[in-house]
Order: sequence, then structure tokens, then C-alpha cells
Amino acid sequence: MEKSSNTTGAMTPELESLFELLRFPSISTDSRHRGDVRACAEWLAGNLAAMGLESRVDDTPGHPVVLAKSEAKPDRPTVLIYGHYDVQPVDPLELWDTPPFEPVLREGRILARGATDNKGQLWAHALGVGAVLREEGDLPVNVILLFEGEEEVGSPNLGAYLEAHKDELGCDVIAVSDTGMVAPGVPTLGYGLRGIACCEVKVSAAKSDLHSGVYGGAVANPATALARLLATLHDANGRVAVAGFYDGVGLPEEWEREAWSALPIDESSILKETGAPALSGEEGFSSWERLWARPTAEINGMASGYQGEGSKTVLPSEAMAKLSFRLVPGQDPGDILAGVRRHFEERAAPGIRLQFVEGHSGEPYFCDPRSRHGQAACEALREAFGREPVMIREGGSIPIINTFRRVLGVDTLLLGLALPDCRIHAPNENFTVENFEGGIRMNRALLRALAKA
Amino acid sequence: MEKSSNTTGAMTPELESLFELLRFPSISTDSRHRGDVRACAEWLAGNLAAMGLESRVDDTPGHPVVLAKSEAKPDRPTVLIYGHYDVQPVDPLELWDTPPFEPVLREGRILARGATDNKGQLWAHALGVGAVLREEGDLPVNVILLFEGEEEVGSPNLGAYLEAHKDELGCDVIAVSDTGMVAPGVPTLGYGLRGIACCEVKVSAAKSDLHSGVYGGAVANPATALARLLATLHDANGRVAVAGFYDGVGLPEEWEREAWSALPIDESSILKETGAPALSGEEGFSSWERLWARPTAEINGMASGYQGEGSKTVLPSEAMAKLSFRLVPGQDPGDILAGVRRHFEERAAPGIRLQFVEGHSGEPYFCDPRSRHGQAACEALREAFGREPVMIREGGSIPIINTFRRVLGVDTLLLGLALPDCRIHAPNENFTVENFEGGIRMNRALLRALAKA
Repeated sequence: MEKSSNTTGAMTPELESLFELLRFPSISTDSRHRGDVRACAEWLAGNLAAMGLESRVDDTPGHPVVLAKSEAKPDRPTVLIYGHYDVQPVDPLELWDTPPFEPVLREGRILARGATDNKGQLWAHALGVGAVLREEGDLPVNVILLFEGEEEVGSPNLGAYLEAHKDELGCDVIAVSDTGMVAPGVPTLGYGLRGIACCEVKVSAAKSDLHSGVYGGAVANPATALARLLATLHDANGRVAVAGFYDGVGLPEEWEREAWSALPIDESSILKETGAPALSGEEGFSSWERLWARPTAEINGMASGYQGEGSKTVLPSEAMAKLSFRLVPGQDPGDILAGVRRHFEERAAPGIRLQFVEGHSGEPYFCDPRSRHGQAACEALREAFGREPVMIREGGSIPIINTFRRVLGVDTLLLGLALPDCRIHAPNENFTVENFEGGIRMNRALLRALAKA
Repeated sequence: MEKSSNTTGAMTPELESLFELLRFPSISTDSRHRGDVRACAEWLAGNLAAMGLESRVDDTPGHPVVLAKSEAKPDRPTVLIYGHYDVQPVDPLELWDTPPFEPVLREGRILARGATDNKGQLWAHALGVGAVLREEGDLPVNVILLFEGEEEVGSPNLGAYLEAHKDELGCDVIAVSDTGMVAPGVPTLGYGLRGIACCEVKVSAAKSDLHSGVYGGAVANPATALARLLATLHDANGRVAVAGFYDGVGLPEEWEREAWSALPIDESSILKETGAPALSGEEGFSSWERLWARPTAEINGMASGYQGEGSKTVLPSEAMAKLSFRLVPGQDPGDILAGVRRHFEERAAPGIRLQFVEGHSGEPYFCDPRSRHGQAACEALREAFGREPVMIREGGSIPIINTFRRVLGVDTLLLGLALPDCRIHAPNENFTVENFEGGIRMNRALLRALAKA
């Protein structure tokens, strides 16, 4: 493995081109950067065309999609590589050590907004494709590069774009590098994501806040009633106590349990990262199982009555909690929300009014990594990073992965290159040169491995 | 009973003088009204002097105290009449039908800020004293009128004032008209107040809000932990479940239960006043018992995580609740807070940090209305309103009553003249002419009754 840049800090043509890409302040949520987002898309399309790909910028009602394709040959598989060239806002700007859109190399790391999320990762793929084309004049598989400019605002137009371009986006598998490596140097294949179901529950009683002396004791306190409802969400063992919640939920398979217990990271890393005083969760499962293979019920927010300094002796007129449930294969978000609503309605105290509002939801995702595509991904990761890859699920949700499956009918390989300390969405976002160069190698190996899969 | 003003809307000299008093915008919390508060005090002292009382305005570090005394004769009891001439702010001003400091008479009611709370009530007492002096040249008891200008800001200087003037404030009993009548025309003697103990409980885990996908399930959720703690405050019967909470708490006495069950008001009035869908509280007690004779544990406020629109899937780093406990005779605020702290600490989940902060507190108050002073008060109420008075406790707290007992060593008679719809502290505050005139009669009867007590 050549690691020249990493050890010497010297610039390479690959880094030069990534720095150009990182200089576009392509902040999708900020309308003042609309032109910068488009300029970034144009730069990508131009550079992909220069590599020999057929490329274009497609308008959407929001920011454009960059689409680039190699010459499609019918006798070989097609891989679609997805990424996003838009980035998160940079505030608080004062917490950055260097200007976020003036990339620099420092101690083996590229510092810039988007360095990891997701320009560094998508550009590693593009450079891998370009290198093979340059060296061999052809690719071992058909390649479609799909880079959107709205991931950081929830991909509002990607579903419609996929539907509209369904035929030309036909592929056998999708590869995405927008997740994490469990530790530096440890290649990581993600093959599952938790789903989500959100809701809000509101409890009310009196028409306005009451004097807790004048009325306290004779009418229900909505905050107390809500706390009592929320306390019934889990049993004493940390299991979600909503009837039917675990229907259809399987245990992690034996090979998964084994793989996760052999991970080269310790559960205590969670304490270091979060500052929590102790691990906590469903009895009978390791932290990785709790995070990746077990569903949860979490309170995301709670509000009632007086929250200011000191005390105000009111009996609040209402209390609310925002909840989200992380879901695993076998669970349907609609069924879960219906069950939670029933759970609360059955337990509502007589002196209160209960209001239940459903929020957004998303399906869980699972794609067996022992499939031929999964094995090809493992081979590529092994070759690029010189070590047997670990296989994990992710605790979060990536809604577009389900959209891909629904519209294009194919699975997605999650080839994460983000490190735990890469500070995505935060000041001083960074990407190691090691992972950038490893990503280029990984793409080359992936194209070869998929050709054989 | 003469009710000329009430039925015809005609002005009387008594109403004229009350209107003068109501025209001072003596808002104690607003420093721009400092001069108005003092002018009001001067007006009171002048008018009390004109009645033949020895009167003065005493400075305090805040707003002044008005003190007026009849000639002290050693062979008769002394009654101290307490009131406050400061008023609440008037905002939202646009909700007033008439300007708050331009009193008008409308349908038998005096409309103005302070009409009931407390200028109308204190002036009724003063006019009663003045009338007897004018008609008889002497009073049947020694009278001390003590009117403060800081009640609406928590009487921060009254305790020190009482200590400093302890000797000249020596008395046998105190009379206060600053509480309520249970219904129009129903004379009401208050003889008990609940105490209070406040605290705040904070639960924390991670050092900042976490992504509920990335960490949800493996570290404790402080909002969930707090909800589970708060849910343990009461048992299934609505009793406070803190160990030792009811130690020393007696049941309301048989005569109290009988008196309250015979009240000429129905519990359903609570639903009408509050808009609550149902009565609710400790099993085995009527609403009046729950409000006046039983202690409570109430959540006054609660906050955690995301409270805005829609959803944000965070695992909050902390959650807090503000609590207050209404106390009854037999309970000590310090003991109660210690018990609550212990209760939470014993039940705190292992994955969280718990912080308990004590807030302000106040003793409960009880003064047996079957005492000779209580009987004198009943006689006065009966005579003034032509009906047997009801005897109640109040659910709230009036800290100065305990201060009086502590510093001056005497009990306080609560001779409430406020009606449920008099809108104290709110726009369109009003006082019925009937109760104003009844208050004057009540004072005259009270002085006579106390002389015989």
C-alpha cells in the first residue's frame, strides 16, 4: 500500500482535485448558496466527463442531480454508486480551526466541511472509476454515478427522480460510502439499518394553567399523567412494554452475534464518546446488539408548565412528549404506531384528555452480507485496507436506501469510510488521507469483485 | 340591610373614597410606579388620620408600610387588621373593558385593578373603624391597621418590619380580608392554609444530546429515567408514595367533614372553573378534603430535549422537573424535601446522574375556628351577611400568616370577601358593592364581637 500523502503530507493530483471539490460551499439548506450548489454540480459533471464518462446535470425542483455513466455493455453487471455533493451548514463558524471551505492538510487529515460527508467519499469512488478507465480503457462492470445535492435536507426530490429515470438507472446493486468504519484501519461493511416511527403524545386537563394551591389535589395534573404513561413504555428489564411490539422481531443470527462480539472495539468506547456514566439497555443483549438489532422506544423531547428560573406553582394545563421508535426487520412502522396509540389510550387516566399525533416513519433495512454482492464488497474492503472487514448493522436510518429498494428493486452495500472522530455535521470536519486513498483502492477492487460476483 | 348602591348604582361617600384609593396605580413590581405607591400610602395615612387614628407612613427598603392605631386602652383586647395597598400589574391592558385605574360602577360591581385585591377589602375595614369612631367617639377594642405595599412582590420587608416594631404591634388576634367567599352571599371564615415545599430534580446522562439512531438503546435516556421517577410519586389510589409523607398527617376532623359536605357549592363548580374533564385525586376524600386537608405532590414544569415543531430524533442529555408539595398540619417542609430526595435517589436508574435542588418552602397553617376569636369572627360574618357562615381551609399558602404567628405570636382570622368571579390578578378585576358594604358592616360587627370574646 502506498501512503505517501498520509505520511509526508504531500499533495497528489487526487488530493488536488478533492480540494477543488471541497472549495464549493454547497450548503443545500441555505438558499443563498443555491448558485454554489449548482456550480459544484457542474464541476462534478465536467470532471466526470473528462474521465470519459457520459455525464450531465439534471434539474430537479430543488438542487440538481449529477448523473454519469460508463458505456453500458449488456454482458456485465451494473453497479450504481450513490453519493451527495451537498454539505451541512458551518455554524458555529468560530469553532473551526481553519475556514471550512479552504481545505488544508494537517497531520494526515483533510480539514473542510464535506471532507468526509460526503465529498471525500464520493470523490474516492469517482477517482477509482477514472483510474481504471485511464489505465485500462474500460471498466469490468457498467457504472452509474448518481450524486445528489439534497441529502442534507432529506432528499425531497430523489424519489421522484428515481421514478422518472427508473429505466436508465437499472442496476444490479448499489454501493454507498456514507456510513462509518468502527475504528481506524478496520474496513467495515454495513448491511442493516434500523427503521423509525415518530409520534407525539399530548395530555391536557384544565383549559389554562391553574394555581397549584387552589386546585392542586382535585384535578388531574397532565405532567404527572404523562410521566405515568411514559413510565409504562419499558418494563423493568428495559424491554419495550407495548403489546405486540416484538411480534416478528428475530434475534440477531448466531453469525452476527459472533461477528459483533469479535469486533476490535470495546463497548466502553460508547461511554467515552457520549460521556454517559454507564451502559444501559435491554437485558440480555450486548451494546452492539442493542444498537443494531434491537428496537427501541425513546423520548426525544418533553415539555410541560413552567421551565424558567426558580419555581412557579402552577398546575400545567398540558404536557407533551415527542417519541421515536427505532425498528428492526419484522416491524412495520404503521403497526408500531397503532400499537403505541392503543397502549397510551388504554392507560390514560380518567381525569385527562389524550391526543396522539403520528409523525414520519421509515422501514428498517437488512441485506444479507453473505450474498454474492456482500461477499464482493468484503473482498474489496479486504483488498483495499489489508484486513478482514467487520460486518455491522447501523443503528440509524438512511431513508433513501429503502427508496432504492422500492423503486429500483436492488440492495445497497454500505461501504463506510467515516471514522468516529471525523466530526461530520460539526466544526473541524475531517477525513484521513488514509481513508481517502483507501476509498480509491476500494472502488477499484469493488468493480473487479462485482464483475466476478 | 341597606343595599342602595348595589341596587340603584348610586354613589355613596364610602364608594367615593374607595374610588379615590383605586385611582392610584400602586403597582409594586414596577419601579416606574414607585411614586404612585408612595402617594397611595400617603393618601391612606391622611384619610386614616382624618378618621381620628394616629397614623404614619413607615419607610422600608422597599415600599412603605402604613400604620394607624386607635388610642390604646389597656383594659380591652387589641386586633391588628392587615391589608395591602399595592396591586398587580394590569397587562394585558387590551383585555380590560374599562381603564384599570379609572374605577366605574357597573351592574353592582366596582371595576378596577385592586377593587377586590386588596384595596376594596382593606378599605371596608378602615371605613368600618372610621364609622364607629365617628358615631360613638370610641372603639370597643384597640385597633391597629397595618397596610403594606409589597404583598404582590412577596412581602420581602414585612418580616423585618414586624420584628422591628414587635412591641407596638402587640395584639391578641389578627384579621385579614384577602381570601375568598365560597359563593356570593355566603360568608366564609378561613382557618387553615396549606404549606409548601418546592424542589427541582434533574436527570442527566450523556454530555450532549445524542443521535437516537446511533446511540439509542445502549445508553440511558434521561427523559425516560425522569418519567419513571415521576411516575413513582403517587400510588394507584392517588396517594403520594414517598415514604413517611403522611407521618403526622391527621384526617380532617369529623366536624370539618360535615361542614364541608354541607357547603352550598357543588364539587362540579371545580370543573366549570377549570375546564378539566373530570375530578381526580386521592381516593376516599371529597374534592374539598383533597384541596384543603390533604397534601399533594405536583409537577409544576417539565423539560427535556427537543420541544419544537415536528420531530428531532435526539436522545436528550438531560431532563428536569419542577415539583411542589402542598402540605398540611403535621408535615415539616424540610422533612418532606429530605424524604423526596431519598425517594428519588433510591430509585435512580444506574445509567443516569441525578441532581436534586431544594427550593422555597412554607409551613402549613391551622387555627381552630371553634376558638373564642374564631367564634367572634363567625358572629361578625353572620351579622354582616345575614346567614350562617361556612368554615373552610384554603388550598394555597399565605406566608405572612406564618410570619405573624412566629413574630407576634398570634393567630389570624381569614375573613374572605373575594368572590370566585372577581378576577383578581386578571383583566376586569371587580368587587361587588354588596361585599364592599358587607365588609364595612362585618368590620363593625367584628370589633364588637372581639370585645366580648
